[in-house]
Amino acid sequence: MTEGFTCPSPLGPGDTVQLAHGGGGRLMNGLIEQLFLPAFEERDAPSLRHDGAVVDVPPGARLAMSTDSYVVSPLRFPGGDIGSLAINGTVNDLAMCGARPAWLTVGFIIEEGLRFDLLETIVTSMATAAKTAGIGIVSGDTKVVDRGKADGLFINTAGVGFVEPADRVIAPARVEIGDVVLVSGDIGRHGVAVLAERDGLSFEHSIVSDCAAVHSQVAALFEAGIDVHCLRDLTRGGLAAALVEIAETRRVQIGIDEVSVPITEPVRGACEMLGLDPLHVANEGRFCAFVPAAQSEAALDALRAIPGSEGTVAIGHVTGEGGHVTARSPIGIERIVDSFFDRRQHCLA
Amino acid sequence: MTEGFTCPSPLGPGDTVQLAHGGGGRLMNGLIEQLFLPAFEERDAPSLRHDGAVVDVPPGARLAMSTDSYVVSPLRFPGGDIGSLAINGTVNDLAMCGARPAWLTVGFIIEEGLRFDLLETIVTSMATAAKTAGIGIVSGDTKVVDRGKADGLFINTAGVGFVEPADRVIAPARVEIGDVVLVSGDIGRHGVAVLAERDGLSFEHSIVSDCAAVHSQVAALFEAGIDVHCLRDLTRGGLAAALVEIAETRRVQIGIDEVSVPITEPVRGACEMLGLDPLHVANEGRFCAFVPAAQSEAALDALRAIPGSEGTVAIGHVTGEGGHVTARSPIGIERIVDSFFDRRQHCLA
Repeated sequence: MTEGFTCPSPLGPGDTVQLAHGGGGRLMNGLIEQLFLPAFEERDAPSLRHDGAVVDVPPGARLAMSTDSYVVSPLRFPGGDIGSLAINGTVNDLAMCGARPAWLTVGFIIEEGLRFDLLETIVTSMATAAKTAGIGIVSGDTKVVDRGKADGLFINTAGVGFVEPADRVIAPARVEIGDVVLVSGDIGRHGVAVLAERDGLSFEHSIVSDCAAVHSQVAALFEAGIDVHCLRDLTRGGLAAALVEIAETRRVQIGIDEVSVPITEPVRGACEMLGLDPLHVANEGRFCAFVPAAQSEAALDALRAIPGSEGTVAIGHVTGEGGHVTARSPIGIERIVDSFFDRRQHCLA
Repeated sequence: MTEGFTCPSPLGPGDTVQLAHGGGGRLMNGLIEQLFLPAFEERDAPSLRHDGAVVDVPPGARLAMSTDSYVVSPLRFPGGDIGSLAINGTVNDLAMCGARPAWLTVGFIIEEGLRFDLLETIVTSMATAAKTAGIGIVSGDTKVVDRGKADGLFINTAGVGFVEPADRVIAPARVEIGDVVLVSGDIGRHGVAVLAERDGLSFEHSIVSDCAAVHSQVAALFEAGIDVHCLRDLTRGGLAAALVEIAETRRVQIGIDEVSVPITEPVRGACEMLGLDPLHVANEGRFCAFVPAAQSEAALDALRAIPGSEGTVAIGHVTGEGGHVTARSPIGIERIVDSFFDRRQHCLA
């Protein structure tokens, strides 16, 4: 079956993606011209029509790179969808390197039969998230696979950002004993929102994902002159996985007070119902920052002044050498926090 | 089900990938430590343990970016596998921008149940291809999805390369009337090799994919002082799709002589048997170059001196304004070449 000289099919509601839309011919060009270009071609972004793009580099900057594939199921959830997630997640990975996110590439793997109206919703959501984050989408790729060979849609984004000044290093290696650990707001909403949507659960108070770009919050720390030592977004495995990774990499002991970790009542209730520990639930708009104790108040002020991180709190500090994370419970009992995998929590991002 | 404090499972033959290997916890760290790090951590590549990497930029260079998702089925084929394809394909996209490929990110989407020994073969193949191409893998991501939700394995790679000098522009906009069109060797082998493997066909002479990195060939053109106007790799849709895209973008007429297009006898025979036009069959190590007529002999000499492109030939030239590609048959009949989508040719890369 060839498409020959036929025109691209209209991408109206109800139409679905065909294998030919990933075939490199006219139908694929139609998809690019009618859907991707109007959504993404803005700012000074080079053409999406070709397989690569060339952009300028600020003099003296170093380059940060990151990639993530997004396989969230279902594709839409309260507070976002796979599109906003795919932009914000990679923007945040760059921000965690101390970089100013600049450009993204996007790779779609689409299951034959995906409805165009759903794809259009998701692409629009990506464009909005990219615009909000001030990041340009410069290069893209579309593959269509047979029915049953993908879960509707997977999206990969890879990003580059610029580290200025070039000698800025944000890494576990810079964590020091005495550093204060900040968390940029309440945790657990993203994971609970997706799980509830997936399982058809409803709670008394609806829980909305925290999915958001956090690079402006990170930038506020730098602008306030904070000597940020380490940053981690609290994604897969939640706050627990982030802290455990840093403790093990730097071989330090991190102690947190559980009462100080911000968790809303609806999330706490939902976690109890679902048998989840909020410390292990994925977030998509929260991060932890390790800062020198002497600057922790200034860091709190800087973050609280930025929309999205008004609820930043200090939850603990680096207590000594070691390699573990401990949490003190409301009644003063200390327990070791490990990074767990909860089977139900796969495909949250 | 949590993995708790258990050790990572040994990645022996016969073991398979579990959802927990994408869960952000200890099993995922085991996969990274035991498989990805030993394969990829080389050169001056930053750690793959974190979500982002920071690298240097040569002073005065511009940055090229490209991405591709690889969904080839089957995962292995004569002459390569999804791993070598995922490296070479993105290296080549960067080379087509006139960039020196430098760094790649890799995103794996793995179907639960994929055998570790197959994954290990593919990762080793990626490492070998990256080393051959002189490119570093700086950042990675692993997602595991439920059985039946992916076709074994999908790989996304995104690459950055450096354009030096920064004012070098390689684009359809630079194509001029009179330009000679070079093709870097025989065409059609990749597509035929994958289709034959998929369909269990065997031919008298085995056909091996042309999958290879071509950036050294492109570099040879620049080193020879050729004012290269445009480059395109002959992937999805083959030579026909590449030429049609350039003709339509630049609104020029491109005329080729079919007899001059290099096609081996086994490929010609297989294409006849399969009912394929070799001009439309995907390649993964071939490109076309548009060069000024006055430099075409020097360009031929430069390419023929490099391993892999010894068979470079001139197949035609830009004949005037227009927007079509025409091919003159061996008996002198001219036909319009369009870009077609052949349903059987999906998932070749």
